[in-house]
Amino acid sequence: MGLREEIREQPAVVARLIADGRDSIERVAATLQARGVDEIVIAARGTSDHAAVYAQYVLGARLAMPVALAAPSLVTLYGVEPKFGRSAVVGISQSGESPDVVAVVAAARRQGAPTIAITNSPDSPLARAADATIDLAAGEERAVAATKTYTAELTAIALLALALGPQDAGAEAFLATLPSAIAAALEVEPAAERIAAARAGIGGAIVLGRGFEYATAREWALKLKELVRLLADPYSSADFQHGPLALLEPGFPVFALAPSGPPADGQVELLGRLRTDFQVDLVVASDRDDALALGDGLRLPSGVPDWLMPIVSIVPAQLVAYHLARARGIDPDSPRHIRKVTRTR
Amino acid sequence: MGLREEIREQPAVVARLIADGRDSIERVAATLQARGVDEIVIAARGTSDHAAVYAQYVLGARLAMPVALAAPSLVTLYGVEPKFGRSAVVGISQSGESPDVVAVVAAARRQGAPTIAITNSPDSPLARAADATIDLAAGEERAVAATKTYTAELTAIALLALALGPQDAGAEAFLATLPSAIAAALEVEPAAERIAAARAGIGGAIVLGRGFEYATAREWALKLKELVRLLADPYSSADFQHGPLALLEPGFPVFALAPSGPPADGQVELLGRLRTDFQVDLVVASDRDDALALGDGLRLPSGVPDWLMPIVSIVPAQLVAYHLARARGIDPDSPRHIRKVTRTR
Repeated sequence: MGLREEIREQPAVVARLIADGRDSIERVAATLQARGVDEIVIAARGTSDHAAVYAQYVLGARLAMPVALAAPSLVTLYGVEPKFGRSAVVGISQSGESPDVVAVVAAARRQGAPTIAITNSPDSPLARAADATIDLAAGEERAVAATKTYTAELTAIALLALALGPQDAGAEAFLATLPSAIAAALEVEPAAERIAAARAGIGGAIVLGRGFEYATAREWALKLKELVRLLADPYSSADFQHGPLALLEPGFPVFALAPSGPPADGQVELLGRLRTDFQVDLVVASDRDDALALGDGLRLPSGVPDWLMPIVSIVPAQLVAYHLARARGIDPDSPRHIRKVTRTR
Repeated sequence: MGLREEIREQPAVVARLIADGRDSIERVAATLQARGVDEIVIAARGTSDHAAVYAQYVLGARLAMPVALAAPSLVTLYGVEPKFGRSAVVGISQSGESPDVVAVVAAARRQGAPTIAITNSPDSPLARAADATIDLAAGEERAVAATKTYTAELTAIALLALALGPQDAGAEAFLATLPSAIAAALEVEPAAERIAAARAGIGGAIVLGRGFEYATAREWALKLKELVRLLADPYSSADFQHGPLALLEPGFPVFALAPSGPPADGQVELLGRLRTDFQVDLVVASDRDDALALGDGLRLPSGVPDWLMPIVSIVPAQLVAYHLARARGIDPDSPRHIRKVTRTR
């Protein structure tokens, strides 16, 4: 099974995780609540680190709790064990084999802090290191570039946020239609292919997202690097204005996420300015007509709660990266130089 | 006074902060210790966010305490106030005028958490929002690109880490010679100019650092974006191997930091592999002969404690960015599109 098939498998993967994984995620949440956690620390690398960024915003917003992304090298290189205190520590890794992520979780468990593994490999070292494991059950991911395990990681985090946070009847009701929203996002493939074909010769890009969609910007940029060999630099739209704005010139490619939600008006204003003042080449993923009208549009389905949208909005981004690789004559099923499992310390 | 003069002013700025600022930093530290803090949250943007990354590693390593980088948009856009509990909250901003950084500090203070401003503007909104202010006293920074305020921010954080952490006689003794180590780093300017002249035509770059030097990699990449309009993507050497490795091809420019310390052997091994297997074009800043021999070298002074080296190692990086701008016919004193103070929400 190739990358495109794994991208297309995402509605089924997410539906299965919601149907079969929810009970165990709720049990994990109940254990955390019983332990009286007041902060969350997350350790992850690569694509999973973008799931960690999503967790930082979603758990931060819904639990009103500081969420820290761990610096694993403190443990593995400097030999320091942070005192985790009343923190829960979550390790995210599809393979469960990153020694640095395992080391952070193992250190936390030795200290008696509650530890959770989110992984597609429930027999992995990460799963063995943690008190509890959330099994993504996404099936084997054969392509080197992670796609379905990323959306599964986000879904697991969203279910954890729902279980730990306040009641949210709207999100609950929406969950049943999340797989069909992902399926609707897959239908932008012709637009993604056209957008890619028109940009086969680009030499670099900026990817902009904000709030919940900052994780999507990071993951989109990584897919462009892995699959397209394109230097793509992701920015929160706020940080972007502190300096990197200097990069822009007419025709410079900017890929942006601007779905409905609190950051949307600011995004539309900024993107309008980038277009008018700097004549950049804009590709915009949004469910809003005003945002889509600013450049080449990737229409996202409407009615998705903003904090669940990253599970949907990454799909057109994956498709753009896939087709941009093909438009450049690169085989997206075998990115050069990298392996599926990366064992960094 | 122009950018080059401000770069050259850094030994004096750091010497002044150590001489005049230390007492007040020790008072701030004593207050934090009296309050019984067990976690630190940092809010910052742009260059100051790289000082925050430095703080994450240095305070994390020396205090063995989780250090979280805040997501300010949770407060400003989503209206969520994290429960800061027993966290101290530090806002870093040279101008003290970033509304989003001010908002995080103000929220923490309302909750009764100890709050600290690190700023070059002791009358700014950020200073007024915090319980205590560490004044960088770096003098007015006229160039749009921050240089001397960045090294002053790192110095303030290092002094705070010394005051809060365990005794460190070696670091104490070294402090008196830190300004002369920065002065020694300024002497690589001819090499930096030569390195820049040889790379005037490059179209993008990767910047690699690890551990304490990850902050330097981030700041080096930002200077290349601001001053040189070069798409430069910073990576921790661990994350780099999870995907972005696919970017590499013969001649691809890689700027790397590899000074002595726990990550150094791994850095030298990785850089050697990048050179042998991928024939990248390497520029290496290090105090180690084996690292310098891997590419065009920027020699860092020896004898600098690894956790203080980022205050020194950024200097050759600034000089490379300055001279690369000039080699490309860009005026480094007035980067396009950006202003000195950026008021993002």
